[in-house]
Amino acid sequence: MGKFRRVPVGIVGASGYGGVQLVRLLMDHPEVELVYLGGESSIGKSFGDLYPHLAHATNLPIEAVEPEIIAYRCEVVFLSLPNGLACQIAPKLLEKGCKVLDLSADYRFSDLTTYTNWYGTERSDRTIAATAVYGLPELYRDRIAEAELIGCPGSYPTASLLALSPLLKQGLIVPETAIIDAKSGTSSSGRQPQTNLLLAEADNSIAAFNIGRHRHTPEIEQICSDLAGHELMIQFTPHLIPMVRGILATVYATMRDPGLVRDDLITIFSAFYRNSPWVKVCGSGVYPQTKWANGSNLCYIGVEVDPRTGRVIVMSAIDNLIKGQAGQAIQCLNLMMGWDETLGLPKLGFYP
Amino acid sequence: MGKFRRVPVGIVGASGYGGVQLVRLLMDHPEVELVYLGGESSIGKSFGDLYPHLAHATNLPIEAVEPEIIAYRCEVVFLSLPNGLACQIAPKLLEKGCKVLDLSADYRFSDLTTYTNWYGTERSDRTIAATAVYGLPELYRDRIAEAELIGCPGSYPTASLLALSPLLKQGLIVPETAIIDAKSGTSSSGRQPQTNLLLAEADNSIAAFNIGRHRHTPEIEQICSDLAGHELMIQFTPHLIPMVRGILATVYATMRDPGLVRDDLITIFSAFYRNSPWVKVCGSGVYPQTKWANGSNLCYIGVEVDPRTGRVIVMSAIDNLIKGQAGQAIQCLNLMMGWDETLGLPKLGFYP
Amino acid sequence: MGKFRRVPVGIVGASGYGGVQLVRLLMDHPEVELVYLGGESSIGKSFGDLYPHLAHATNLPIEAVEPEIIAYRCEVVFLSLPNGLACQIAPKLLEKGCKVLDLSADYRFSDLTTYTNWYGTERSDRTIAATAVYGLPELYRDRIAEAELIGCPGSYPTASLLALSPLLKQGLIVPETAIIDAKSGTSSSGRQPQTNLLLAEADNSIAAFNIGRHRHTPEIEQICSDLAGHELMIQFTPHLIPMVRGILATVYATMRDPGLVRDDLITIFSAFYRNSPWVKVCGSGVYPQTKWANGSNLCYIGVEVDPRTGRVIVMSAIDNLIKGQAGQAIQCLNLMMGWDETLGLPKLGFYP
Amino acid sequence: MGKFRRVPVGIVGASGYGGVQLVRLLMDHPEVELVYLGGESSIGKSFGDLYPHLAHATNLPIEAVEPEIIAYRCEVVFLSLPNGLACQIAPKLLEKGCKVLDLSADYRFSDLTTYTNWYGTERSDRTIAATAVYGLPELYRDRIAEAELIGCPGSYPTASLLALSPLLKQGLIVPETAIIDAKSGTSSSGRQPQTNLLLAEADNSIAAFNIGRHRHTPEIEQICSDLAGHELMIQFTPHLIPMVRGILATVYATMRDPGLVRDDLITIFSAFYRNSPWVKVCGSGVYPQTKWANGSNLCYIGVEVDPRTGRVIVMSAIDNLIKGQAGQAIQCLNLMMGWDETLGLPKLGFYP
Repeated sequence: MGKFRRVPVGIVGASGYGGVQLVRLLMDHPEVELVYLGGESSIGKSFGDLYPHLAHATNLPIEAVEPEIIAYRCEVVFLSLPNGLACQIAPKLLEKGCKVLDLSADYRFSDLTTYTNWYGTERSDRTIAATAVYGLPELYRDRIAEAELIGCPGSYPTASLLALSPLLKQGLIVPETAIIDAKSGTSSSGRQPQTNLLLAEADNSIAAFNIGRHRHTPEIEQICSDLAGHELMIQFTPHLIPMVRGILATVYATMRDPGLVRDDLITIFSAFYRNSPWVKVCGSGVYPQTKWANGSNLCYIGVEVDPRTGRVIVMSAIDNLIKGQAGQAIQCLNLMMGWDETLGLPKLGFYP
Repeated sequence: MGKFRRVPVGIVGASGYGGVQLVRLLMDHPEVELVYLGGESSIGKSFGDLYPHLAHATNLPIEAVEPEIIAYRCEVVFLSLPNGLACQIAPKLLEKGCKVLDLSADYRFSDLTTYTNWYGTERSDRTIAATAVYGLPELYRDRIAEAELIGCPGSYPTASLLALSPLLKQGLIVPETAIIDAKSGTSSSGRQPQTNLLLAEADNSIAAFNIGRHRHTPEIEQICSDLAGHELMIQFTPHLIPMVRGILATVYATMRDPGLVRDDLITIFSAFYRNSPWVKVCGSGVYPQTKWANGSNLCYIGVEVDPRTGRVIVMSAIDNLIKGQAGQAIQCLNLMMGWDETLGLPKLGFYP
Repeated sequence: MGKFRRVPVGIVGASGYGGVQLVRLLMDHPEVELVYLGGESSIGKSFGDLYPHLAHATNLPIEAVEPEIIAYRCEVVFLSLPNGLACQIAPKLLEKGCKVLDLSADYRFSDLTTYTNWYGTERSDRTIAATAVYGLPELYRDRIAEAELIGCPGSYPTASLLALSPLLKQGLIVPETAIIDAKSGTSSSGRQPQTNLLLAEADNSIAAFNIGRHRHTPEIEQICSDLAGHELMIQFTPHLIPMVRGILATVYATMRDPGLVRDDLITIFSAFYRNSPWVKVCGSGVYPQTKWANGSNLCYIGVEVDPRTGRVIVMSAIDNLIKGQAGQAIQCLNLMMGWDETLGLPKLGFYP
Repeated sequence: MGKFRRVPVGIVGASGYGGVQLVRLLMDHPEVELVYLGGESSIGKSFGDLYPHLAHATNLPIEAVEPEIIAYRCEVVFLSLPNGLACQIAPKLLEKGCKVLDLSADYRFSDLTTYTNWYGTERSDRTIAATAVYGLPELYRDRIAEAELIGCPGSYPTASLLALSPLLKQGLIVPETAIIDAKSGTSSSGRQPQTNLLLAEADNSIAAFNIGRHRHTPEIEQICSDLAGHELMIQFTPHLIPMVRGILATVYATMRDPGLVRDDLITIFSAFYRNSPWVKVCGSGVYPQTKWANGSNLCYIGVEVDPRTGRVIVMSAIDNLIKGQAGQAIQCLNLMMGWDETLGLPKLGFYP
């Protein structure tokens, strides 16, 4: 027992930003022990070869991805792989009794037709996929606690849904009027070299991309439809802005009751998130900055009403790599293991 | 004559970003000669004392602001002052025969009640103000050519109105659905030191501000109402993003005819701006980046349609200090003097 | 004793970057409890009023700075004040039995004449000052453990001295040839608004400042002289670069023995820092990036030799607000209290 | 004649940053007409396909690189290619009577052995190479005016040599003590995607690279040796800093006469550059910022003396893509054609 007083966990796909954040956060978690790192492209290297400055965090080698062996050594496995790969590995891990948290899109959809339409990959793991729970604890806390397989949300959907959920759930807005204008640091586009992500190209510039066809759109719509109780289409526009980390989602919607004022809504949001330790609803007139969230698992939410137009405007700020990715996965793990939801996760951003 | 073969121009308020850009651009203009710089706070200094690296551009001293003397020496005067000051100086300059281009908000409103409501300053120059023309050449080219007094648009309204005008003018959208989500570099907040504008605070962060109460709102609404033919209220949200220059306005609106496709709208926009040399409508599927516009007087416009939601999304990108401020003022001057609208203005951004 | 099983600590000057970092780091420290925040300019406000996003970290009010009361409530006090103020408060706190860690320059100098020459303030606390220990644990670990009063190093000296110390201590270089070319993010210049620190001014630019007269120069020289065994003058040039956090010091010196190669020096550096958990000497050919250190208390050191010129070049990278300021102060506290030197401090940077 | 009243020029390699800057600058030059763009990888596309936002600058297609055809159409050809390619094309162009300005390293070395040692490419064009002139007008103005083939300097050498030349030429320093610590924006590393140049990696970070073995070292040493009158080795360290454009070189050297003061040296520098319109020597106590130079062909030089150490410190700031690359090439062209050295080049930076 001794050796594994802590829960043994593994990461498949440790070399990207998601993987690095998982390593960093799991090293500080009091109840887990990182025992396995896998990734085809770096087999034979150690984690310290990939990231020399983190060699003191872990000496683990990057190993081949053999589900049987992983399952023998790990109780929990995080998958941080390009879309379309997790669905080939997760079923085998689950069969052997592992709990699986997938950071890709593979297990985010209750309807795999939607997945195939937007991601272009046919899927044969329909039965398994049906057991997956969408890993947004603020909405699905109880189901996550019971799950063996989690489809962790994308970073844009995390910010967007935390802003929209109270409005939709309480029927406060005309759902079809909802517009999400999201702005992200470039780390959300990953670590693969691309011209448009070079500092010389992306610094001192902003542009929108993939309007109406970003793959996070159906993920947002699925959950919004669930909350609203009917099928919804949501306008979602992502932008890349010249910063490393952070997403701000600015959400617009027309209120059903134009008489509601800002403080009414702040009260409603505060109540909605009363038991959600990772969501902070800002006080009246305070708008969140992404810098506040950087380095923490927090989501800051600001609420404004424009009485002139009858619209509510909600802003949510997260660290795209923590609450938007690796931190949220660990938050889900905490729930799955029956631990405190905040265990081992950073509570204070690294401002400035 | 000799000495002033070129038109003698002056700038009141040469020390801020607007003033510096005016100096820089006017030095490259073939038909004007900068002969006067004024500004109370720097009297006795030379321009090179304020900006050592531009000392070779002009040796002019910063002089007291005495309208009679300015009018004696200048045919055209640019006012680049805090709101509420231009309206004290402009009447005297006009009386002496100067043409006046004001970069502040003082002469942007046909209805001074709106000005007073939003800016809090009572005004006694109602007669003069009624003669002012809103200096957005793409909409008011002919009136500008006849004007003696121009109220130059703010940078957010410039980007916003160039995106919205074709839609409103052609009746293509439901006006009340229009939402402007604007993102600006911090230079649009000026050069006065403020904590929130420090690099350590503003870098790697984004936040919205002044939702529903930014002073550029009534300016946008005034022109939109003019285009739509009835009173409008427009949702306008500005954000500060971590870059020096540039504004991207992302504009959303519901189309009256949901059958219109992207290329229909690109055709309409291209036709609308056919005679506007400073507006470039992007090809199908191309979205503008602010970096493209930086350093030039251009506005790049991208048009997208989301057939799923029936909305049109228009993106416009400008350099907030050139097309959004000093360059546009000079574009107006070109029209007032009967010169080519492009004279002396930078046509190619300084990418990367 | 129930309430204070943990050691009660206070911070005087909690509103600047040093104070904020102290609050953030102390909240994560398992052996201390933050019980007092003081600062004249914000009396009556709470910490959450100053930093809304950190209101959940502590609800403490900002109180008046009354040494008797502070000493009654705190066992340890951090002073994070402008230069020249700590020396008025520290003596009273010490007299009442507090341990004091000062983040300003007031207690960094064994010779107060140097202090007065460079800081222009006369001092009357000569006896107290003589008991202060320079808080660079890698050099003065044992003396810090015995001290009651610590003069915590500046951020530039921390990076510079960690790079130079092994060379000077082992007599490997001609001391007079040492040149420190340091580059810092703008947070090292503090949170007071100044034009040159605005994002619009400081972004996309770099400049040197205060060459040969930066106030960190005598601090560097004092310790270098101590290490070399004779009076030294060191060339020190700071630069501000467009980033929030981090300092890179690039140090040049001529080697006494031009036959030494890179790996010899890496061996020497590694031995020198063998018992220093917060210094990481990079492997052969690896140069440190400041990003690696950001968010941690680590100093990364890279060593290079240019056999063509006979010079050694050492690069050291730190987070200026952690190892360069608040983290190092807590590292000193750990030593003073007999705790593990790494207790409660962040070991992994927040890359990317 | 009509059509080519202006001198017809071509660019081989129009798709990188050097090429784009050449296009942009040549479009504003009153005496040339851009008639040819070449580049193997983009044949068949137009310039506007590569850079949609510059389509209005030129509609030229990207053509195959056939020297005979190029020479038939162009009087002057700029080569903006990876190292080792220009030397295959230039001889053919010269033979046909073209003037050639090469932006790569191929024609920077009077001694091709040095080229081969540092660049690893054997060369067979020794006779041609011997006719090339190093394109730094401030040093070799007269020889450039007579040349048919120019090896345009690298950006680091441009900044470094403009700082060092007056000191070496006048024998003011001990040459072996010279150290160049250079800091560059990432555009100097080009537009090819690489992980370390991604915004997410390079932003908020700084690191040195290639110490003692950067390929600009021998180029700097060649010119310094020429100025000093004997073989020199110079310490040169480049750093990448988180900005797009600009290089600051901070140069240290021990003065032969320690009695010289700052103003003596400013006088000497000012005299040295009296006839150099693109070099601005800053006044006493003024240090240059790279932002000042951005967008212009200027080099700003600041001079400081540290009387404590007997060293002179010189800072030079340039836009790496203009004075450090494309602008300087055009400055050379102006001299070769007998035009004013400043013709068609931007005199005022785009501050802020």
